[in-house]
Amino acid sequence: MGSAGNLPRNEDGISAALGVLKQQFGEAFHTGQSIREQHGHTTTWIETQAPDAVVFAKSTEEVASIVKVCAAHKVPVIAYGTGTSLEGHVNAPAGGVCIDLTEMNAIKEVHAEDLDCVIQPGVTREQLNTYLRDQGLFFPIDPGANASLGGMAATRASGTNAVRYGTMKDNVLALEVVLPSGEVIRTGTRAKKSSAGYDLTRLLIGAEGTLGVITEVTLKLQGIPEAMSSARCSFETIDAACQAVMMTIQYGIPVARIELLDTLAVQAANAYSKLDLPEEHLLLLEFHGSETGVAEQAEMFGSIAEEFGGSGFEWTTKAEDRNKLWQARHDMYWAALALRPGTKGISTDVCVPISRLAECVTAAKDKADALGLISTVVGHVGDGNFHMLPLVDMDNAEEVASAQSYVSWLNELAISMGGTCTGEHGIGQGKKPYLRKELGGAVDVMAAVKAAIDPDGIMNPGKIF
Amino acid sequence: MGSAGNLPRNEDGISAALGVLKQQFGEAFHTGQSIREQHGHTTTWIETQAPDAVVFAKSTEEVASIVKVCAAHKVPVIAYGTGTSLEGHVNAPAGGVCIDLTEMNAIKEVHAEDLDCVIQPGVTREQLNTYLRDQGLFFPIDPGANASLGGMAATRASGTNAVRYGTMKDNVLALEVVLPSGEVIRTGTRAKKSSAGYDLTRLLIGAEGTLGVITEVTLKLQGIPEAMSSARCSFETIDAACQAVMMTIQYGIPVARIELLDTLAVQAANAYSKLDLPEEHLLLLEFHGSETGVAEQAEMFGSIAEEFGGSGFEWTTKAEDRNKLWQARHDMYWAALALRPGTKGISTDVCVPISRLAECVTAAKDKADALGLISTVVGHVGDGNFHMLPLVDMDNAEEVASAQSYVSWLNELAISMGGTCTGEHGIGQGKKPYLRKELGGAVDVMAAVKAAIDPDGIMNPGKIF
Repeated sequence: MGSAGNLPRNEDGISAALGVLKQQFGEAFHTGQSIREQHGHTTTWIETQAPDAVVFAKSTEEVASIVKVCAAHKVPVIAYGTGTSLEGHVNAPAGGVCIDLTEMNAIKEVHAEDLDCVIQPGVTREQLNTYLRDQGLFFPIDPGANASLGGMAATRASGTNAVRYGTMKDNVLALEVVLPSGEVIRTGTRAKKSSAGYDLTRLLIGAEGTLGVITEVTLKLQGIPEAMSSARCSFETIDAACQAVMMTIQYGIPVARIELLDTLAVQAANAYSKLDLPEEHLLLLEFHGSETGVAEQAEMFGSIAEEFGGSGFEWTTKAEDRNKLWQARHDMYWAALALRPGTKGISTDVCVPISRLAECVTAAKDKADALGLISTVVGHVGDGNFHMLPLVDMDNAEEVASAQSYVSWLNELAISMGGTCTGEHGIGQGKKPYLRKELGGAVDVMAAVKAAIDPDGIMNPGKIF
Repeated sequence: MGSAGNLPRNEDGISAALGVLKQQFGEAFHTGQSIREQHGHTTTWIETQAPDAVVFAKSTEEVASIVKVCAAHKVPVIAYGTGTSLEGHVNAPAGGVCIDLTEMNAIKEVHAEDLDCVIQPGVTREQLNTYLRDQGLFFPIDPGANASLGGMAATRASGTNAVRYGTMKDNVLALEVVLPSGEVIRTGTRAKKSSAGYDLTRLLIGAEGTLGVITEVTLKLQGIPEAMSSARCSFETIDAACQAVMMTIQYGIPVARIELLDTLAVQAANAYSKLDLPEEHLLLLEFHGSETGVAEQAEMFGSIAEEFGGSGFEWTTKAEDRNKLWQARHDMYWAALALRPGTKGISTDVCVPISRLAECVTAAKDKADALGLISTVVGHVGDGNFHMLPLVDMDNAEEVASAQSYVSWLNELAISMGGTCTGEHGIGQGKKPYLRKELGGAVDVMAAVKAAIDPDGIMNPGKIF
């Protein structure tokens, strides 16, 4: 753990490709150590594996041109958005060329009447929502980080709003993609639905850059709801909190967010974000709808929470109060790290059928305690998805080994419960051992698809497979 | 038009495979002409191309066993559900073996607390919903026909409820699939979301049986809403009706259905279903939610409709009144055929961005009129999806040619408007000419995926490509 291992390097090819790209891209071409290392670095425990060069692309044509050079010399291509992925997705274990897409950040078209927009891949979530606000529109997927939308598509991101609005797979209408050959394709249209051939859009979403580079994204948008309300409620046990979640979902209350923070996470949030939440397990909710609707939804949840022994139920439509709570939720990663300064947080996520959630979370907490690992529990529990974050002293080999065995154990537990080893972080380098445990021979079909589209294996090698 | 052309037959292989299957399957193996023709027949204008044999499978193991025999002899395999697809999906242009899945109709597991179920592919939509009703659950996707859920997955079906609940791609959690080799894989788990590798579930949904045979489906379910209301409103012009739809969607009113019937369709429904709807263009809506919610939604729609000159706005929560209207909507295909007895209805669907809907529908009607074609307009207009149904005397070559040119023109019009040549019927044999017009080089990527998974091309040949 910590290192994902290197792959064989094609030294001659890399050297030749770098020569050509330097010539073609001049000042947009970089080989300085610090910029290279920055592009292999992610919000993760996995050791940095820097690419050999970074090229800042400004257009689809430039991306295609870079890919063609790399294809000619059989050199790895790694697409880079904001580097906020969590499983080593932008590492370069075989070296190669990183294409930085942050300068491709134009919002090309907004079709308010169709509730869609067309953007370049480097546009970030916050940039898009700031731009859309005046038109009464927003893009709901919120993985926490201010990630690029191309990266969010590539990793099939989701997050707090997914329980209501789905994940990236549900909110992308079409992609423009540069294939490993350098050819450019479009996978769909602006039609809201289609039965025209294989769903290449969904095949590319979550492929983690292993099949091509996303150079344009057509997104579904939502109208900003007339009203929003937030609610919170505390529970003595994880089980009671999870039961309340299950009932809320079963009743069909269209929660926009329903998040669980365990007692330790609440303590961390209180300390870091200067709050005075009751130090119990907490459910934090948001409702979107009409004024009447959000009031009704909050009250319905209140009744359910009461039934399961919840206490301190409060709800509000005041933006200031809502923002304070959700800011604390967004800062949870940093709040947790502050529980044990100097350590790294090994963020790992699993997702199980909601009926197994209480059991899975409780087992996860107990096991962490038994191993002496300090970890908060934070979860998008409406989907059965939660995160453990063991805080590990990376210089302590025993602790690192213990965390490694913990992550393995948790992933296998989720799979044994009919769940998945990753609800939203993706496979990258970190979860490769669990993919076959979860999906068996289906992984061979994925590999066949990979070989068909990228026969030389130049697209983000060492990820997923 | 009418015939999709035959493909080369592997006579020796077919003969050998039939010998083995007859031996293995005894009474479940059929070669009688009428049963074979029935299995090449669909609710369509496309000429029947019967398979050489039909085998009724009872289990995944039997499907795998049939596929292995066909694979060994390079013989086509065509999966059959209810034969209600519309673009020649179950035809056998190269002969081969049809696997009838209707006897694989077990509802294996219902997980009420997780809002999911696991079923065999031959389970029909109505069978499932009848079974689920007592548990307060339902499966929302409703393509009109009482189709099998395996077939609905294979064709990426959608229909009237898609505007609220999405299409099959949004409502399937996982599939079990028999690959062209006979190997059985699972594409996912019961987790509500996952980022574990390529999205094979979505790749198989809408692949029209060209990549494998679906032998089990894990579906998302919904709680039956506390209340439902229906509303209707008439409009003098298509444009006004479409404007009202666009505003309804933009306001974020969570309509469960919003259907357009043009004046001719209303006349047909009045005659066939003994109704007395005003003979104008009609919007027919359904709302799902709480008692307060559905009242609020219906009233909000009423205000929007008024703004666009709608008349005769009525809404009701009475089940009897609701059912009568929706039954008429479901019977629309037969009602339209009754406008001109003895003809065939050439059902064709397109889907465009909703801002182009009024223009597209109006052009489609005008063009049909100019060609002397009688056609209703019926549409799932919340998604920008609508159907034309020219009623054609198939013995009149001129009329057939005219309808053929009309379908071509309409598909190209939709594509030129940023839409798709099929919102929900699929490509099959009937829409092959338009797929490349819509998606260009992406079709080569689809073909590469097909060749990688089905190198001998035995799975439903002659469809999509």
